[in-house]
Amino acid sequence: MFSEFPHLIDLNDHPVSWWNGLLELGENILRNPALYANSCKGKLMGTLFYEPSTRTQMSFQTAMLRLGGTVIGFDNPATSSVAKGENLKDTTKIVSGYADVIVMRHPIAGAAKAAALTADCPVINAGDGGHLHPTQTLTDLLTLKVEKKRLSGLTIGLCGDLYNGRTVHSLCKAMSCYPDNHFIMISTKELRMPSYIKDAIRAGGGTFEETESLEEVMDKLDVLYMTRIQKERFASEEEYLAQKDTYILTPKKMQLAKKDMIVMHPLPRVDEITVSVDDDPRAMYFKQAKYGMYIRMALILTMLQSTARTQLLRGREHPGVTCQNPKCITNFEAYLPKRFTGEGTTLTCEYCDHGLLLKH
Amino acid sequence: MFSEFPHLIDLNDHPVSWWNGLLELGENILRNPALYANSCKGKLMGTLFYEPSTRTQMSFQTAMLRLGGTVIGFDNPATSSVAKGENLKDTTKIVSGYADVIVMRHPIAGAAKAAALTADCPVINAGDGGHLHPTQTLTDLLTLKVEKKRLSGLTIGLCGDLYNGRTVHSLCKAMSCYPDNHFIMISTKELRMPSYIKDAIRAGGGTFEETESLEEVMDKLDVLYMTRIQKERFASEEEYLAQKDTYILTPKKMQLAKKDMIVMHPLPRVDEITVSVDDDPRAMYFKQAKYGMYIRMALILTMLQSTARTQLLRGREHPGVTCQNPKCITNFEAYLPKRFTGEGTTLTCEYCDHGLLLKH
Amino acid sequence: MFSEFPHLIDLNDHPVSWWNGLLELGENILRNPALYANSCKGKLMGTLFYEPSTRTQMSFQTAMLRLGGTVIGFDNPATSSVAKGENLKDTTKIVSGYADVIVMRHPIAGAAKAAALTADCPVINAGDGGHLHPTQTLTDLLTLKVEKKRLSGLTIGLCGDLYNGRTVHSLCKAMSCYPDNHFIMISTKELRMPSYIKDAIRAGGGTFEETESLEEVMDKLDVLYMTRIQKERFASEEEYLAQKDTYILTPKKMQLAKKDMIVMHPLPRVDEITVSVDDDPRAMYFKQAKYGMYIRMALILTMLQSTARTQLLRGREHPGVTCQNPKCITNFEAYLPKRFTGEGTTLTCEYCDHGLLLKH
Repeated sequence: MFSEFPHLIDLNDHPVSWWNGLLELGENILRNPALYANSCKGKLMGTLFYEPSTRTQMSFQTAMLRLGGTVIGFDNPATSSVAKGENLKDTTKIVSGYADVIVMRHPIAGAAKAAALTADCPVINAGDGGHLHPTQTLTDLLTLKVEKKRLSGLTIGLCGDLYNGRTVHSLCKAMSCYPDNHFIMISTKELRMPSYIKDAIRAGGGTFEETESLEEVMDKLDVLYMTRIQKERFASEEEYLAQKDTYILTPKKMQLAKKDMIVMHPLPRVDEITVSVDDDPRAMYFKQAKYGMYIRMALILTMLQSTARTQLLRGREHPGVTCQNPKCITNFEAYLPKRFTGEGTTLTCEYCDHGLLLKH
Repeated sequence: MFSEFPHLIDLNDHPVSWWNGLLELGENILRNPALYANSCKGKLMGTLFYEPSTRTQMSFQTAMLRLGGTVIGFDNPATSSVAKGENLKDTTKIVSGYADVIVMRHPIAGAAKAAALTADCPVINAGDGGHLHPTQTLTDLLTLKVEKKRLSGLTIGLCGDLYNGRTVHSLCKAMSCYPDNHFIMISTKELRMPSYIKDAIRAGGGTFEETESLEEVMDKLDVLYMTRIQKERFASEEEYLAQKDTYILTPKKMQLAKKDMIVMHPLPRVDEITVSVDDDPRAMYFKQAKYGMYIRMALILTMLQSTARTQLLRGREHPGVTCQNPKCITNFEAYLPKRFTGEGTTLTCEYCDHGLLLKH
Repeated sequence: MFSEFPHLIDLNDHPVSWWNGLLELGENILRNPALYANSCKGKLMGTLFYEPSTRTQMSFQTAMLRLGGTVIGFDNPATSSVAKGENLKDTTKIVSGYADVIVMRHPIAGAAKAAALTADCPVINAGDGGHLHPTQTLTDLLTLKVEKKRLSGLTIGLCGDLYNGRTVHSLCKAMSCYPDNHFIMISTKELRMPSYIKDAIRAGGGTFEETESLEEVMDKLDVLYMTRIQKERFASEEEYLAQKDTYILTPKKMQLAKKDMIVMHPLPRVDEITVSVDDDPRAMYFKQAKYGMYIRMALILTMLQSTARTQLLRGREHPGVTCQNPKCITNFEAYLPKRFTGEGTTLTCEYCDHGLLLKH
C-alpha cells in the first residue's frame, strides 16, 4: 500500500544514505541558520499531539518557525474536540487539507503509520507510544556527528535502564549501521539490554560488553549516554538503595573520563545526573536538545521538498488474524487494513512491529 | 445601535449580493492561493473560543496564516483566566485593542452580537451555542458553487436528524434565496424538518418533499447532505434498531445515485457514512472542510478591507421585559441593552432570535 | 553572580534613565507602529506560563507578533509535560536554546530571577507570584506619560485595597522616582497603604495624604487608580455592606472630577467601576491595556538589541541559612545558590526580597 507523499514513520524505512543526507543538511543549517530562515515561507505545519509532550512540540514548532513557516495544532487531548469522538482518519484527512506537513504524537503504537495511510501530506512520527521516536534518534546522531565529528569507531557507554529504554535501543540499532562502534552496556542484571538489540549490534558488525559498574569503564568511553532509572525497576527497595548511586553521574565520576568524552541524555532527567555536572564542558545534554531543533529543521525541509512516494504496507491480510498487542492502533481504528509481514506461523504486525505466533 | 466596524454575526444581516461576492472571492483564492499569501501581512486575528472547537479554530487559524497574518487567542475556557470572572465586554474591549479582527465561539446564543456591540474591530461569529454558525453555511455554499457550478436548480437531499440540525436549517434558508432549488427531506417522522424552515423555503419560491427512505430518492439527487442522527433521538430502542440502517450511507446505496451527485457532511461524522464510502469520488466531505478554509480566507480578508458600519440592534427596549431563553446572552451579561424587534404582544429577542409572547 | 544577557526581573535593577528610554521607545512605537513591524523578524519568543494568565500572555504574544517575530510556549501547567517533573533550570536551558527571549510567569516568588541565572537568552518577568510584575508598572507609566504628558507634578488617587495591592505598591515606588507627585490614598482603615510604601514615597521627596472617602477628594485628582477590593478584606459583613459603595466608581462620582482626570485600572475589574463609566472619555482602562502592548513591544525590542550583562546576585551565602518564605523559589529548586544581601542579623533574600532576622 503506497502513499503519494514522503513520510518519516520509522528510521528503518529509509536507507542510511538518506540519514546521512539529513544529518549533513542539519549540520549545514546549524552552521548557517540565516540561509534557511525563509526556506518554508508560506508552508504550514500541523502538530497533532494526542498526548502532551511540550518539549518535543516546542522543538518542532521552533524548527518550523525558524524556517519561516507557520504552525497550527493541538496538544491537549482532554479539551480538543478533534481528539474526542472522531477517528484518526477523519482528523488526518481534514488537517492534511489545511497543512503542508503533519507532525503526530500519539500514545498508541502505529498511529503515525495509520495517519500516513490517508494523509494528503507528509507525516512525521513524533513518538507513537513506546514504539518509535525517530527524531530523538536523529537528534542523537546529529549530536555525535557534530561533537565527535564521526559516527564510527566510537566507544559508547549506555547507562541506566537498558531493558526498557526505547531511546537507547534505537540508538544502538542506528549506530550499528556505522562501522567499528563498540557499546559498553552499564546496568543492573535485571535491567540489561534485551538480546534482540545485541543481535542487531552483532549483525551490523559492532561489538559490545556488559558491566554493572559505571566507574570501572568510565575512562574508556568516547560517549556516555545516560538514561533514567526508575525506583520501581529495581528488584527490591534494598537493591535500589544499594545500587542507585552507582548509576548517578557526579563530578567525581566525571574526573575518571576522557577530556573529550561527551555526556548525552534524552531529557527530562530526574536525578541520574547531578546538577553540578551541568557546568562541565563535556555535559552535552542541553546542546543535544538544541541539535534536536536543527535536525527537525532539516527533516521538515526535506519532507516539504521531496516528491518521493512511500510504501507503507508491504505484507498482506490473513483472514481472521488481528494484532494481539492491546496498544496497537489496529485495535482502536477498526477500518485499518490489518496487514502482517512474514509467512507461515510467524507474523509481524506492520503497524506496531508486534510478533505473532499462529497456532495450527 | 450601530458599530463602526463590519461584522458577520448572522448571514441574514447581509444581502445575497454580499454572499455572492464572498463566494466569488473564496473561489478566486482557491484557484490561486499564492496571489493572496500576503494579503493580511501585519494583521492579527484574535480567536476567542469560549468552548473548544478544534476543527473550526484550526480552519480559521489556517485561513489567517495562509493570508500572511498572525493569530493569538484561547481555546480552553477551563484554564483561561480571561474566560473566568471577566465579563464579555471587557475581554472583547481588551482583545480588540490587540487584534485587527476577532473570531468568537461561545456556548451562549447572542454572544457574538454582544461582543460586536463593544468591539473596536470586526467580529466574526464562529458559532454561538445552537443558534448560528454562518461560516459553516458559507462553507456549504462554496462547496456547491465549486463542485456543482451553480447555486440554483439543484435537487438537494437532506438526510438524518432534520428536526434538531442547525446546519441543515441554515442551508435550507440560504439556498432558498437562490431560484429553483428542490429539497428532499429524508428522516423519520419524529425528526422531520420544522415547519418554519418549510415556510422559509416556500417563501423563497423553492419546493420540497418529505420521505422516510433514502434509497427511494437517491437517484433524483444532485446533492446529498448527511447529518448525524443520535440514538437518543429515536422514539425507542426498537425504532432505532429498525430504522438506523436506513439513514446510514453505504457503497451499496451510492450505486443508486447519479454519477455527478456529491455527498456533503459538516463533520465530525460518527457512523452515518461508512468509511468505505470515502474512496468514492462523489464523497465531498473532506474537500468541503478545505473549502471551509478558503471561504474563511475570503471572509477575513473582506472584514479587514471593508469600512462598512453595522446596525446591530434595530428594535427597542420594553420596560420590564427580558428574554425568556435561559441560554440567551442577555441573561448572563447584565449590562447589555435588552432590545426586541416586533411590536404589541409578539416580540423577538435581537440577540438569540427567541420569540416572546407578552400577556396583557 | 552575572548573566551574559540583559534581563528584566525587577524594575529597580535598572536606573530611571533606562525606564525613560523604554517609555520613549514605547511612545514612538505607539505613534508609528508600522516603522517597527519587522524589527524582530527572525526572532522567537518563548512564553513559559507556569500559571495561566491569558491577558498578560496575549499582550506579550501580540507585542512580539506586531514586531514581526514569532512565539512558542505553554500556558497550561496541568497538561504541560515540561512544567511537571522537570526543574526550572532544565526547562529554561532547553527553551533558551530554542528562543531568543523568554517571558516567564510563575506562581512562586523569585522564579524569573532563578531562570535568568541559567538562561542562554534574556528573561522577562511577567509576574512571579505576589512578588513583582514589572511590565504592569511600565504599562501604568506609559499610560501616564501619553495621557497626562508628564510623570511629575501629578496628584494621584489610589482607591481600594491598598494594603494587599501589589500593583499600587509598585506604582507608588516607581512614581516616587519622579519629582513633585502627590498621592491620595483612599481606603478603609483596615486596608491602608503599608508604611514601607509611605517611607518610599517620603524618601523620593513625594507627599501623600490618606482618606476614607473617594467623593471628598475626587475634584483634586489628576489620576484615579482604582483597584479591586474583595469582600473578604472587610472587617465584617456589616462593614462591607456599609462601606462598599464608597469605593465603587459611578458616573455620579465622575461628575465631581476634573475634565482631564483619567481613570486607570489594572484589569480585570469585578464591580468596583460600574459599566456605565466606560463611555466616559476619561475612562482610560481599556486604552491602558493597549499601552501595555506597546510598552511590551519596546521591552522585547530592547532586550533583543541590548548586549548588557546583568548582575543577578550581589549578596553571599550564609552557612545554614535558608529563606523562611514558604513561597520563595529557593524552597522549591534545591540547586539554587541561597544568597542574601545585608549583614549581621538582618538579611534579605535575593530572590523573593523576604526579610530575615537571624537569632544569635
